[in-house]
Amino acid sequence: TVWETVDNMIDGFLDRLPFLLIGIVVFVVFFIAGKFARKAIKRATTDKPSANLGRVVGRLAQWALVFVGLLLAVTIMAPSVTAGKLIASLGIGGVAIGFAFKDILQNFMAGLLILINEPFSVGDQIVSGDHEGTVESIETRATNIRTYDGKKVVIPNSQIYTNPVVVNTAFQCIRSQYDVGVGYGDDLRAAARVMQQTLESIDGVVGDPAPDVIATELGGSSVVLRARWWTAPERANVVKVGNEVIASMKEALDDAGVDMPYPTNVMLFHDQTEE
Amino acid sequence: TVWETVDNMIDGFLDRLPFLLIGIVVFVVFFIAGKFARKAIKRATTDKPSANLGRVVGRLAQWALVFVGLLLAVTIMAPSVTAGKLIASLGIGGVAIGFAFKDILQNFMAGLLILINEPFSVGDQIVSGDHEGTVESIETRATNIRTYDGKKVVIPNSQIYTNPVVVNTAFQCIRSQYDVGVGYGDDLRAAARVMQQTLESIDGVVGDPAPDVIATELGGSSVVLRARWWTAPERANVVKVGNEVIASMKEALDDAGVDMPYPTNVMLFHDQTEE
Amino acid sequence: TVWETVDNMIDGFLDRLPFLLIGIVVFVVFFIAGKFARKAIKRATTDKPSANLGRVVGRLAQWALVFVGLLLAVTIMAPSVTAGKLIASLGIGGVAIGFAFKDILQNFMAGLLILINEPFSVGDQIVSGDHEGTVESIETRATNIRTYDGKKVVIPNSQIYTNPVVVNTAFQCIRSQYDVGVGYGDDLRAAARVMQQTLESIDGVVGDPAPDVIATELGGSSVVLRARWWTAPERANVVKVGNEVIASMKEALDDAGVDMPYPTNVMLFHDQTEE
Amino acid sequence: TVWETVDNMIDGFLDRLPFLLIGIVVFVVFFIAGKFARKAIKRATTDKPSANLGRVVGRLAQWALVFVGLLLAVTIMAPSVTAGKLIASLGIGGVAIGFAFKDILQNFMAGLLILINEPFSVGDQIVSGDHEGTVESIETRATNIRTYDGKKVVIPNSQIYTNPVVVNTAFQCIRSQYDVGVGYGDDLRAAARVMQQTLESIDGVVGDPAPDVIATELGGSSVVLRARWWTAPERANVVKVGNEVIASMKEALDDAGVDMPYPTNVMLFHDQTEE
Amino acid sequence: TVWETVDNMIDGFLDRLPFLLIGIVVFVVFFIAGKFARKAIKRATTDKPSANLGRVVGRLAQWALVFVGLLLAVTIMAPSVTAGKLIASLGIGGVAIGFAFKDILQNFMAGLLILINEPFSVGDQIVSGDHEGTVESIETRATNIRTYDGKKVVIPNSQIYTNPVVVNTAFQCIRSQYDVGVGYGDDLRAAARVMQQTLESIDGVVGDPAPDVIATELGGSSVVLRARWWTAPERANVVKVGNEVIASMKEALDDAGVDMPYPTNVMLFHDQTEE
Amino acid sequence: TVWETVDNMIDGFLDRLPFLLIGIVVFVVFFIAGKFARKAIKRATTDKPSANLGRVVGRLAQWALVFVGLLLAVTIMAPSVTAGKLIASLGIGGVAIGFAFKDILQNFMAGLLILINEPFSVGDQIVSGDHEGTVESIETRATNIRTYDGKKVVIPNSQIYTNPVVVNTAFQCIRSQYDVGVGYGDDLRAAARVMQQTLESIDGVVGDPAPDVIATELGGSSVVLRARWWTAPERANVVKVGNEVIASMKEALDDAGVDMPYPTNVMLFHDQTEE
Amino acid sequence: TVWETVDNMIDGFLDRLPFLLIGIVVFVVFFIAGKFARKAIKRATTDKPSANLGRVVGRLAQWALVFVGLLLAVTIMAPSVTAGKLIASLGIGGVAIGFAFKDILQNFMAGLLILINEPFSVGDQIVSGDHEGTVESIETRATNIRTYDGKKVVIPNSQIYTNPVVVNTAFQCIRSQYDVGVGYGDDLRAAARVMQQTLESIDGVVGDPAPDVIATELGGSSVVLRARWWTAPERANVVKVGNEVIASMKEALDDAGVDMPYPTNVMLFHDQTEE
Repeated sequence: TVWETVDNMIDGFLDRLPFLLIGIVVFVVFFIAGKFARKAIKRATTDKPSANLGRVVGRLAQWALVFVGLLLAVTIMAPSVTAGKLIASLGIGGVAIGFAFKDILQNFMAGLLILINEPFSVGDQIVSGDHEGTVESIETRATNIRTYDGKKVVIPNSQIYTNPVVVNTAFQCIRSQYDVGVGYGDDLRAAARVMQQTLESIDGVVGDPAPDVIATELGGSSVVLRARWWTAPERANVVKVGNEVIASMKEALDDAGVDMPYPTNVMLFHDQTEE
Repeated sequence: TVWETVDNMIDGFLDRLPFLLIGIVVFVVFFIAGKFARKAIKRATTDKPSANLGRVVGRLAQWALVFVGLLLAVTIMAPSVTAGKLIASLGIGGVAIGFAFKDILQNFMAGLLILINEPFSVGDQIVSGDHEGTVESIETRATNIRTYDGKKVVIPNSQIYTNPVVVNTAFQCIRSQYDVGVGYGDDLRAAARVMQQTLESIDGVVGDPAPDVIATELGGSSVVLRARWWTAPERANVVKVGNEVIASMKEALDDAGVDMPYPTNVMLFHDQTEE
Repeated sequence: TVWETVDNMIDGFLDRLPFLLIGIVVFVVFFIAGKFARKAIKRATTDKPSANLGRVVGRLAQWALVFVGLLLAVTIMAPSVTAGKLIASLGIGGVAIGFAFKDILQNFMAGLLILINEPFSVGDQIVSGDHEGTVESIETRATNIRTYDGKKVVIPNSQIYTNPVVVNTAFQCIRSQYDVGVGYGDDLRAAARVMQQTLESIDGVVGDPAPDVIATELGGSSVVLRARWWTAPERANVVKVGNEVIASMKEALDDAGVDMPYPTNVMLFHDQTEE
Repeated sequence: TVWETVDNMIDGFLDRLPFLLIGIVVFVVFFIAGKFARKAIKRATTDKPSANLGRVVGRLAQWALVFVGLLLAVTIMAPSVTAGKLIASLGIGGVAIGFAFKDILQNFMAGLLILINEPFSVGDQIVSGDHEGTVESIETRATNIRTYDGKKVVIPNSQIYTNPVVVNTAFQCIRSQYDVGVGYGDDLRAAARVMQQTLESIDGVVGDPAPDVIATELGGSSVVLRARWWTAPERANVVKVGNEVIASMKEALDDAGVDMPYPTNVMLFHDQTEE
Repeated sequence: TVWETVDNMIDGFLDRLPFLLIGIVVFVVFFIAGKFARKAIKRATTDKPSANLGRVVGRLAQWALVFVGLLLAVTIMAPSVTAGKLIASLGIGGVAIGFAFKDILQNFMAGLLILINEPFSVGDQIVSGDHEGTVESIETRATNIRTYDGKKVVIPNSQIYTNPVVVNTAFQCIRSQYDVGVGYGDDLRAAARVMQQTLESIDGVVGDPAPDVIATELGGSSVVLRARWWTAPERANVVKVGNEVIASMKEALDDAGVDMPYPTNVMLFHDQTEE
Repeated sequence: TVWETVDNMIDGFLDRLPFLLIGIVVFVVFFIAGKFARKAIKRATTDKPSANLGRVVGRLAQWALVFVGLLLAVTIMAPSVTAGKLIASLGIGGVAIGFAFKDILQNFMAGLLILINEPFSVGDQIVSGDHEGTVESIETRATNIRTYDGKKVVIPNSQIYTNPVVVNTAFQCIRSQYDVGVGYGDDLRAAARVMQQTLESIDGVVGDPAPDVIATELGGSSVVLRARWWTAPERANVVKVGNEVIASMKEALDDAGVDMPYPTNVMLFHDQTEE
Repeated sequence: TVWETVDNMIDGFLDRLPFLLIGIVVFVVFFIAGKFARKAIKRATTDKPSANLGRVVGRLAQWALVFVGLLLAVTIMAPSVTAGKLIASLGIGGVAIGFAFKDILQNFMAGLLILINEPFSVGDQIVSGDHEGTVESIETRATNIRTYDGKKVVIPNSQIYTNPVVVNTAFQCIRSQYDVGVGYGDDLRAAARVMQQTLESIDGVVGDPAPDVIATELGGSSVVLRARWWTAPERANVVKVGNEVIASMKEALDDAGVDMPYPTNVMLFHDQTEE
């Protein structure tokens, strides 16, 4: 009876063989159709305002076709399996999968939502967690940024989606600041005036909102004046203008005879050598 | 028999084709109806106290219509599927989805609840986590704030909903403070009086609650007096008044001859050069 | 046959239309009844010891009525749906919802429990996580506190429920302390006596438990004496008394000739100029 | 037919009304019985060694009665609902609830287990996370401690149950220590002897285990000797004895002529004024 | 008909009453049997190598008996409930319970596994997280350690099970080390030799592995030599030997005329008094 | 009757024995076929652009064959078990497994996705979390990197997949920088010019983008100039060029007579020896 | 009727008794068979390359036998329970267990996978989290390492499996480094040459890759040269060679007359004694 059972199984397998082959063919056809559908939709929307939406729809269309192909193929291959039962068991299997691969699935979903919502676009300069740089590309699974010193950072979309993102280049200008300590003996308001004039004279410092200089601290050795100015938000520009501001302010304060004191201490001296 | 099976499937597909098309048409009709419903409700409530509620109801109406359209379309397309079975299997599928996309779903829900509860509104200045700025807009998925130096921060609503939020501009005035160290040899109460008078004379410092000056520390090199004053809560105002307070107090203390000592040390000197 | 199917669906829809309308009416009636029930219960308990309990019961009554209304409405609208089946499928849907919106549901539950348990009440000064202030209001979703410098902090109830909360104003008086460093050459016990007398003479320092002064450290440059005193627990009071203690102790120690030394170092000097 | 349906529903409701009322009465009876049962059990065990167990059993009895009452009431009110079906659907609903309110349920369970296990009792001084104080009361949801400076801290039981708790007052005495730096030129063992004698002479320092003095560090400016002594574990006692130890050791070392040096540096001096 | 229903319920209850009582008796019998079984197994294995295993088996036997008793009791009390159905619904209820009380259940499981695996035993000195001390007892829910200064720490078993534990007393000896800075002008190898001889001469320093002295740093003011020696692993012993090592090395280096320099700085002096 | 039951079971087992053996044989055959399939696919794609895809497909093919073999074997061995039932129960079991082994399953899935997506390849230098080094191999479960100092770090793929990864060698050159402090009295722009020329003269510093020197800080004792230059991204190269830059700049600044000042302080001297 | 029910239960129990006993016997037989199978497989593979695989297979075989024994025993004991039903309910129970004991199950699974994958072996020196030492043994639940100072650390396998592990002894040699500060006035390249020659002359420093000396910092008081050399990766060796390198370099630099300066400051002196 053992051999009968095995025999029956082999017979059944041979009878089923053509179905298996056709099932595989059907799946491959749908798989390829999915690839084409995606590319077609993507190509149709490139360079249009709906380009991102096109990429999302294309990808969804591809997944839908592959899924339909899989259903058809299984229905052909296994006679007793209907699409209904298959979907039902996929439901339960989905719970397991949703559980085990939670972080991975969330990544893809977040990628689709970022493409649709566009909190930032390629070319923006963003900060996510500890990483800052220029957005190179937004993919389904991750966003790639290029740091200012030329490294690539691959940031999973779920991190971008569930944590705050700072977009440096969202508005037309951003503010920089630098603190300068001037001597307690200097005229505070005169020194501020010198710094203000220097700021206004520098190329790249925006006129409106105007730069200003404020007193922020009565420090240990000096009174701290904070220069604040606005520039275009791109990093290269911010650094270039900042460099010029610091160098120019130093020269202007030197020229104006304003003291920038070294750290200063009072020492109460007791000579105990003779003891 | 293989070919029969495939033949049957193709025949069935052709019979079903008009149903498929009508199903798609139905879904598209409901999808567009949803968009219109949302816009209509939103437009009807703009500039009314119930504007936020309108946005929430509109969005819910849209989702409900899309969902009904999907149910109808599937019922038309698949003859053996009734709405009941569909909902049942959606239940199980929902567990998987609720699981895999937990963080994302929570974001949308939190967005709706923030719009209804209004812990803060557009224009308020808030602190959430490490980010502080002016609220630019409250969207379903995220709240956008503009930092004081001109960057945009996209904060997911779930972070705002499940963590404390500080609303700086919730009340009519907020308090600032600045610590000044005066010499151990100076008259503490006289120095405090000078600082108090300076505070009272400054524009933008609120009269009630009145500013005050308290002794907070017998420091290493100086006695620390803390000036505390109230201003309107907007950041630009706080900074402007703070700047004026620091500059004026410095000048007033100088005029009154109060010492603001440098860090001071006692050195017990032992000359061991001859050893 | 396509048209037949669609025709049947439209016919069915028209037959069903009055049911739909009545279902909606029923739901709206129950919804409004819920609002009234809540207000009635709340009004009946205001200014009574059971005010909080009243708010909780009112809210639960409202939710129960809305839920019953929803059940009735669906039963009227969908002929094949019985309340039993509905509850069953709500059970499964509940798992998904409980999962996806875990943090949000927990917030509401925690709010109800805080209202019943009353670990603190409006007007108390509490510390929760990094935030400290006076409790302004306890709502179902969040507790609002007002920081001492006039900012509003919205703290989700789940954070308050699952983390320790410090209630500063729970008891009749709280202790403050301040460390004073006196010279190694001074009489330790005499200096402590001077500080003790100063503490006892200050308004607002509670007599029982009595203030005391203890030696806590043989520091690098001074022996540290810690003054400890009890005051009423409200913050404004603690700050006012603390200010007075510090200023008075400084004057008393000056009068008593007790040294409060600057940081002191021994320098072993080797002149190597000639090398 | 619409009206028929509605009519039937209203008729059915009126028929059902007396059942509803009796169901409510039954539930209220059981609810009140639960309250009485709990109080009775609590009163019967107060001031006995099984007091905590009594509180737990009482609470469980109350919950059991309320639950039975609810089952009965629903069975009376809804004719088609049997206790079996109800429990089954409660099972599934329990999954959702267990999920959504996980942290809250865990709190209550942990409270019951703490009452049974008694890792500490009211009056003990404990440290849990960042908070230290005397245990005021152990409730089902939280443990209240009173900090040494008079604040109340409400600590959720789940935190106490799933994290380490330090019980300061678990044993008969605890050890304190204080580091004293003596000069490199002093006789180390003589200085240690002086400190040891001082420790032994102080009231409140336990004789067994005996206090000791050990060398722990060859520091930058001094050799560090660590005095270690045992006292009764209550905080007020530890502080009082510690104060006396520090003051006495300082005086004893002064009397014995042992140097407690200030921070000491060697300075290699190069006069470059003429350059 | 209302009264009929209620009447039937009461009749049914009275018929059922003897079953209820017997059910309760059965449960109590099994409950007590469980207690006895546990004690018997525990007593039988005390002071044998399988003592821990005995405690685990005893506890499992108790739980099994209580569980069987509960099954029997419910089967007697509720006529329509069979053991099979009960177990089935317990399965689903178990999911909810497993979820809600995850941390608590894990604690017990971890306790059983620790008793079987014995990564350490009572009397060992261990470090778990921030807490270090001698193991006092290992219970099913928590491990109690006694810190060296006499406090009890209750550490939940799940923390011990899922985090690294350091067992100080696992091997026959452990290494201590102390860094001594000698002057740049001293003979490095000679100083190391002096330290090495001192180490070898001290009681309690193990001969094999031998102590050694290595150069580890060219520091700012001194060359750092690290003495390393092995002792028996108990804390009291490590501290006692360490104390002796530090005191002896200091004396030996003094005797050998090796310099242990104070922090040393070079000062380039510019007299600007006349400016 | 006991013996009958047991007898029946043994008889049934003997009848079943040949089925069991054949089932085992079938499984082993499929297991070995799986191994061969994987190796064949891997060998066929080695050294082709699709090598990674080949490894993934090969592994999936192996798993599929083992799974089919298991299904067949169980169907042969257990007469009453059909493939359908088996898959159904595997679905539920999958939930448990997906839950319990979530982190482990996610690792494998992430490994497959990394092999397909190729965010980096073997030989790249990456930073993941706290670890940096050269990628040695990418396996299904973990990615191995070799740190620059010759240690192997095994990083689980799930960490790489769900956290940002920095790829140092993604672009053609990366930027290094070094801060030099020059004296306040020196000509800032002249010093920058000297540094710039030195940078341009060094082998390995890329010409485009060009190196530059910017002022970044008015420090306590010096003005800080930051040299920035681009090199090929490999670590060995970055270190070698960086070494040359630092040594050369020091010599060039010395030659040009630019001051690189020691930390500088102002001391206000009060001789109190006579007191 | 009560007594009838109880009577029936007791009769049924007595009838069932022999089945129970045989069931227990069957389970015990399989339990012991499992122990033997494991030991046999382990012994057969000891000291072969497949030793680890053997341990894993042995353990799995044991678990499989115990599981089959349990199934058989329950089938014998409970007449109405078939293996199928049992497995089905184990599936659901598994979800609960998988949930509640997630961390514990994951530990065992990770242990098996570590034994198969062998990211490191016994005797390797690894770093996992904060702990570093030599691997003593790899068990199913935890990996034991011995720290260099003789403590045992028990690290749960799940921590090792889901976090990066550094294997120090993976390659043939590892690099050490030490920073030496030389005076600003010294010839940088000459000093580097001296250090390089010292490195090359030391026993244990590997010739290929060769040691090198690079300039890494223009520090506050000295130019920092970093010596880098390669040694065999075992810790004892790294320490011994490092000690020799530091001592020798110090002597070589002394001999070559290279300055290793103390921390250096410039002091701008203002005598204000007369004020």
